[in-house]
Amino acid sequence: NTSELASHELASHELASHDRTTFNPTTEHLTFAARVAWRNAARCVGRGYWPALAVRDLRHISEPQQVFRELQRHLRQAWNGGRIRSTISVFGPGVRILNDQLIRYAGYPDGLGDPQNRRLTAELTALGWSPPVQRSDFDVLPVAIETGGRTQLFEWQADDVQEVAIVHPEVGDLGLRWHALPVISNMELRFAGLTYACAPFNGWYMETEIGARNLADQGRYDRLPELAQRLGLDTARERSLWRDRALVELNRAVLHSFDAAGVRLDDHHSLTRQFVAFEERERAAGRRVNGQWDWLIPPLSPATTPVWARSYREDRELTPGFFHSRRSAF
Amino acid sequence: NTSELASHELASHELASHDRTTFNPTTEHLTFAARVAWRNAARCVGRGYWPALAVRDLRHISEPQQVFRELQRHLRQAWNGGRIRSTISVFGPGVRILNDQLIRYAGYPDGLGDPQNRRLTAELTALGWSPPVQRSDFDVLPVAIETGGRTQLFEWQADDVQEVAIVHPEVGDLGLRWHALPVISNMELRFAGLTYACAPFNGWYMETEIGARNLADQGRYDRLPELAQRLGLDTARERSLWRDRALVELNRAVLHSFDAAGVRLDDHHSLTRQFVAFEERERAAGRRVNGQWDWLIPPLSPATTPVWARSYREDRELTPGFFHSRRSAF
Ligand code: HEM
Ligand code: HEM
Repeated sequence: NTSELASHELASHELASHDRTTFNPTTEHLTFAARVAWRNAARCVGRGYWPALAVRDLRHISEPQQVFRELQRHLRQAWNGGRIRSTISVFGPGVRILNDQLIRYAGYPDGLGDPQNRRLTAELTALGWSPPVQRSDFDVLPVAIETGGRTQLFEWQADDVQEVAIVHPEVGDLGLRWHALPVISNMELRFAGLTYACAPFNGWYMETEIGARNLADQGRYDRLPELAQRLGLDTARERSLWRDRALVELNRAVLHSFDAAGVRLDDHHSLTRQFVAFEERERAAGRRVNGQWDWLIPPLSPATTPVWARSYREDRELTPGFFHSRRSAF
Repeated sequence: NTSELASHELASHELASHDRTTFNPTTEHLTFAARVAWRNAARCVGRGYWPALAVRDLRHISEPQQVFRELQRHLRQAWNGGRIRSTISVFGPGVRILNDQLIRYAGYPDGLGDPQNRRLTAELTALGWSPPVQRSDFDVLPVAIETGGRTQLFEWQADDVQEVAIVHPEVGDLGLRWHALPVISNMELRFAGLTYACAPFNGWYMETEIGARNLADQGRYDRLPELAQRLGLDTARERSLWRDRALVELNRAVLHSFDAAGVRLDDHHSLTRQFVAFEERERAAGRRVNGQWDWLIPPLSPATTPVWARSYREDRELTPGFFHSRRSAF
């Protein structure tokens, strides 16, 4: 692809020839750097789509109210009626989002909600958030935007957050739901010595993230026992493999529900195959693939996918890249 | 456990005080060293049972015909009518087994049998083995014993090799089988500067080794498509998760068949839980657990097991230990 190569030449040349302290990337630079940061993300199995990342250059925006308005726009543009677009919004200096993802469900001390978000929920509550009067397992948390040592909370509007009810094709409604957009909001984009601390990005989900982790993990929604009961499985003996059977059915339900709702979501077989094709394109282009095997294998039937038998090496310093900031708490 | 501690003191003291070139361990030393080698095996999730390893001190035996007779005895004692006993046989110097496991099924160029064993099958054929006239998917290979640069083949007798026919509890006979004993025969036992190149050992199987790898892998028996057909699954679309469903059913069939035949086999849920208990005992005893995450997680629903969320470090030089010799071809 010549335009990408041309853009690459441009970027390396320009990035190298500028003084780091005064360098102000053009939107074209930024766009290319964000895409390459994705391409370099060692843990991401969705990287085959990297050239299609939509980059919103919002480096002139740091004021919390404006940031929030642009986050709402991000959600709308990325949602795109279900045909989700991979999108990143790069904000100006001095601003940071506390939440690890833009959409997160509250986790309450009594067990309701997402246990993984208990600390985040407590922190947001300390900052002034009140849970709804009728608490549920799926109460969307506000987003906390920090500027100049001050943190402000913003509540999503109802149509900002798109969700899918989880229905099993044979068992029926499981009383579960999940949001359509995973928007990681606590990683920093770094390249050419620059750091963008507020640069939330999203792709779409792989079904196992929802069906084999978020709704299944014992430290998350832990819904395998309930589903196994509804499926009539023998939960008294591990050797009935009721966990494994319920797990597959939960993932089928996630796929079925997102498909029925017309919301983009990849299955782990197709996505890992695409990932291996991406690896081959990268090698053909003379680039080494950065990778972390334990994150790239899916948590469902991993040995049936082509990543299982491959090996990967990780360069933890590779830039452009996305990094967990030492400051972020979640 | 005082007797184990006493034995430990003895071993470390004795091993340290002897000149490596003249040191000749007692049977008690050897027994303890072999058990600790198992305890140190970074890839083994069955290590909770390490104190129960039966050690056969056969260091006076190196003559091929005698070695083979003792291998037959090993199989019989380890088999124990289905209540499998973890067993190691330590032979004398100058002898080596070519096969990576004592029981292996031939892999033929036309696709019949176990594709993983094609090279081994070719080598054994070059050494004089003839496949049966009626070749099948489960032809047991002879064992090749090398001494002094000369290799001799030995055929197992019918009752040396115990096998289980794989029957699914609802679908019925799958036309598959597997042997009951995994006996690794190409790893060296090393401790106190000594190397025992011929020291085959066995435990029993974890069901996923057979159901999620040997019979399922595309590079092995590749039987998921056939089983999916018999289950009436939609194999035209990955999103039906037919691979994942067939995989669970194949593992259920393995568990069901071994249980029905009264042959010991662990499921991956119970075994990983036992492994974590072993880790805790080790830490309580002040020992670091040697581990390799990518081998310890099972290939079926790994995130539902307690090893998934843990992390492990590996010391590749740790002795006593089992090592893949640089000389072994398989
Ligand atoms: C297009 C659809 C996408 C899919 C299906 C996808 C898939 C995944 C999956 C399954 C993970 C592992 C998540 C986990 O286990 O917690 C992951 C991690 C990651 N992805 Fe992607 N991804 C997509 C888009 C993106 C985009 C657009 C970016 C950035 C521009 C990105 C960057 C990352 C990074 C940095 C991680 C590691 C996160 C961490 O360290 O916590 N991905 N991705
Ligand atoms: C008692 C039942 C046992 C179970 C259920 C068990 C389970 C396992 C499993 C699942 C693996 C990974 C195999 C693979 O993926 O190819 C493994 C590897 C291993 N086990 Fe065990 N094991 C048992 C007994 C033993 C014994 C008795 C020893 C030695 C005395 C042993 C030493 C090892 C070693 C050295 C490996 C690594 C093999 C390699 O590098 O290829 N295990 N075990």
